[in-house]
Amino acid sequence: MSDLPVAVHISEEGPREGFQIEKGPIATARKIALIDALSHTGLDHIQIVSFVNPKAVPGMADADDVVREIKTKPGVAYTALWLNKKGFERALQFSDRLANTGTIQLSASEKFSLRNQNRNAAQQLTEQHAIVESYKLAGVPVERGSIMAAFGCNFESDIPVTRVVALVQQILDIAQEHGVTLRYITLADTMAWATPLAVKRVVGTLRQRWPDIDVALHLHDTRGMAIANAYAGLEMGVRRFDSSVAGLGGCPFAGHQGAAGNVCTEDLVFLCDELAIKTGIDLDALIECAQLAEDVVGHPLPGSGRHAQEVSEITSS
Amino acid sequence: MSDLPVAVHISEEGPREGFQIEKGPIATARKIALIDALSHTGLDHIQIVSFVNPKAVPGMADADDVVREIKTKPGVAYTALWLNKKGFERALQFSDRLANTGTIQLSASEKFSLRNQNRNAAQQLTEQHAIVESYKLAGVPVERGSIMAAFGCNFESDIPVTRVVALVQQILDIAQEHGVTLRYITLADTMAWATPLAVKRVVGTLRQRWPDIDVALHLHDTRGMAIANAYAGLEMGVRRFDSSVAGLGGCPFAGHQGAAGNVCTEDLVFLCDELAIKTGIDLDALIECAQLAEDVVGHPLPGSGRHAQEVSEITSS
Repeated sequence: MSDLPVAVHISEEGPREGFQIEKGPIATARKIALIDALSHTGLDHIQIVSFVNPKAVPGMADADDVVREIKTKPGVAYTALWLNKKGFERALQFSDRLANTGTIQLSASEKFSLRNQNRNAAQQLTEQHAIVESYKLAGVPVERGSIMAAFGCNFESDIPVTRVVALVQQILDIAQEHGVTLRYITLADTMAWATPLAVKRVVGTLRQRWPDIDVALHLHDTRGMAIANAYAGLEMGVRRFDSSVAGLGGCPFAGHQGAAGNVCTEDLVFLCDELAIKTGIDLDALIECAQLAEDVVGHPLPGSGRHAQEVSEITSS
Repeated sequence: MSDLPVAVHISEEGPREGFQIEKGPIATARKIALIDALSHTGLDHIQIVSFVNPKAVPGMADADDVVREIKTKPGVAYTALWLNKKGFERALQFSDRLANTGTIQLSASEKFSLRNQNRNAAQQLTEQHAIVESYKLAGVPVERGSIMAAFGCNFESDIPVTRVVALVQQILDIAQEHGVTLRYITLADTMAWATPLAVKRVVGTLRQRWPDIDVALHLHDTRGMAIANAYAGLEMGVRRFDSSVAGLGGCPFAGHQGAAGNVCTEDLVFLCDELAIKTGIDLDALIECAQLAEDVVGHPLPGSGRHAQEVSEITSS
């Protein structure tokens, strides 16, 4: 009936996804408080900042301070996002605190790539070869392949599964050419086009073709399908997910065209708990973080209250 | 891989679920505007009011006016909820405008039934016999069986599937004894305990035992699982769902212990559209209703903005 995994690994992206989109300003100490709380939930991978131009993303102007001042917990990998060489170099300065790893990333939508990064498909490929070399030079392990807009794109509509297969092959070719071994490939539903059936189709196709490759899912909730898509992924044996506590990054107040965050971490952990899939994460501690996240951003968040009842039941019994 | 239905029937419960829980006050004309807009989406079943004590539920004090003043559209069944004889008699006075039908309803949780209605399991059964007789006397067709708390209860935890089977049998026995034929049985996840796996287990068990009985799902989103549970239901061939436009009934501002509405109608229709399952509902018109619902209640609703992009894409192309 299904192929549910025994355990899943969840990468928390709430701080990075949330603080880059929130209008704020949010005090650095409050950001740190949330990250420190997340460090004590059992999460072992937390993306905390992006090293980007503070003029473009004011919420990340204090990224250096955040990295410097969090109380790092042994066993937790703190990561940063970067989009160019300058950002990467900033991340490298924190090699003692950040678990910097490289990604080979392609977009399934050329139109999206052109609009977002001003690069066509050929330029993307060329660039990725150069980026992998720069990672190798810096001694940064390249562990992940990633396909943006893997399920669809606002500018190109649905993405055929054959294109995703071709992109995975290109990523594997780049990895092989540079002598790096990827641990997994993330399918990012950047613009929330995935449906449960599409998740099953794409993941199923990749699994059949490359049984040994771990497929991870990065699922946005813009169309309300994230948790259903995550469930479809679990049914296909997916063992790696990105997620955002309280749905950080999504903001019901950003207006109807607003971005929406990743699948809520606490929804995903709750679902896994109910399916007897191990996450290593303490749901109650996570729910407290979701409530803290709401307090930090100063407005309701999609997931902040959903599982609060579980906590109150436990504390009252 | 799945047993997706060709078409599903969706009963809209947003007006009733929403206006009974919103603090308001909301002008009667605004309630009517939303119902009238919903009448033009392709929905053919809209629950518009509950006939309950206005002291207990001030938002339903104008129920009579709402029923009297909506512009009924031919082909749309407008329904009301009642909880006792007095409410039923109020509904009967609108037999020209309301499609009154009877339900045989039992609770899977005796503790919930005791707290909610002050009746134990035996008393529930006795009462349902009397209620069916009163429906027959009034000439109201009895079409539906319903099991409250079918997946779990805050006071009893998980509900074993054997109990649900026993309750379905009791409902069928009542129907047979009184010579009525039920069209379907609704499993109501009253306190949002369902998970996709539980939906599959319970629906699968009922289907195996009673292949000819249509099972409907009434799924609350308190724990964020509603759309994943709906998808699991679709995979098991479920063809009937209750839902709430924009997630009316759910209110992120009601505090962390607040009730949450049914699965969002527009999320469910979007999912069905993507799975090529017919609903007969115009998603764009429905999204406009979701935005209207937000305007009517005066605050953001869970689903009001999620699919707005589809509308804007269509109107801009």
